[in-house]
Amino acid sequence: MEQRVSLITLGVSDVARARAFYEALGWRGQEVEQTVFFQAGGLVVVLWGRAALAADAGVEDTGAAFGGTALAHNVRSREDVDAVLAEAAAAGATVTRPAAETFYGGYAGCFTDPDGHVWEIAHNPGFTLGPDGALTVPDFGG
Amino acid sequence: MEQRVSLITLGVSDVARARAFYEALGWRGQEVEQTVFFQAGGLVVVLWGRAALAADAGVEDTGAAFGGTALAHNVRSREDVDAVLAEAAAAGATVTRPAAETFYGGYAGCFTDPDGHVWEIAHNPGFTLGPDGALTVPDFGG
Repeated sequence: MEQRVSLITLGVSDVARARAFYEALGWRGQEVEQTVFFQAGGLVVVLWGRAALAADAGVEDTGAAFGGTALAHNVRSREDVDAVLAEAAAAGATVTRPAAETFYGGYAGCFTDPDGHVWEIAHNPGFTLGPDGALTVPDFGG
Repeated sequence: MEQRVSLITLGVSDVARARAFYEALGWRGQEVEQTVFFQAGGLVVVLWGRAALAADAGVEDTGAAFGGTALAHNVRSREDVDAVLAEAAAAGATVTRPAAETFYGGYAGCFTDPDGHVWEIAHNPGFTLGPDGALTVPDFGG
């Protein structure tokens, strides 16, 4: 198994509402058969009905908001953290952790989208964020 | 908010066990302060204690296996789907949907990792998988 991820599918209760949320953040997707595809660098973020996703994957869905997964979106400055969190809140997100200093010398905050999916918005000066948005882990020398 | 994802954090109950699972699939990560970082193209996959992740994000954790998120790993052939699913099962995954034809003309199956995180392994001839592993959504002409 190569060390990469091709798609992240976010199961949602209302595809139109979820699409409107991400489009309010400036994202642009394509909808095909009640599924929305957002090209996100070399990865694709997909919005799909949560019941269909659980059935397709063969897993039980108890309706929990949090299943142990969080996404992060790194930005280029502390000001960008504040700006994205404000933009998300205005679009209907819940800010679950206001922006604050982090133990690693960065600055970050978290929100959940209308379906409870967790996003951290972070400025981490120790991780290189390329011009194309690619994030590179430093060599920790371990 | 730019249209990209920087990190996917998978909350786990035992970081060493989770790391051993992904390393059995051929992944190589770096561990820093009980957190494992896997460079995955322009994205980073992180393993971190689930309780710490929930507390850090400011969300409640009811311990559900499925929270509405699924990851996918696209491969270059049907044979690769079978090979990765077999490799994952041998490493301790649960195959939740055996490989089969899909409605879109592909071939795919799903497994959950030791913490219940869902992965679909798919061959989708309609989506371009670049030599570097980047996945590109076609223009659906919508």
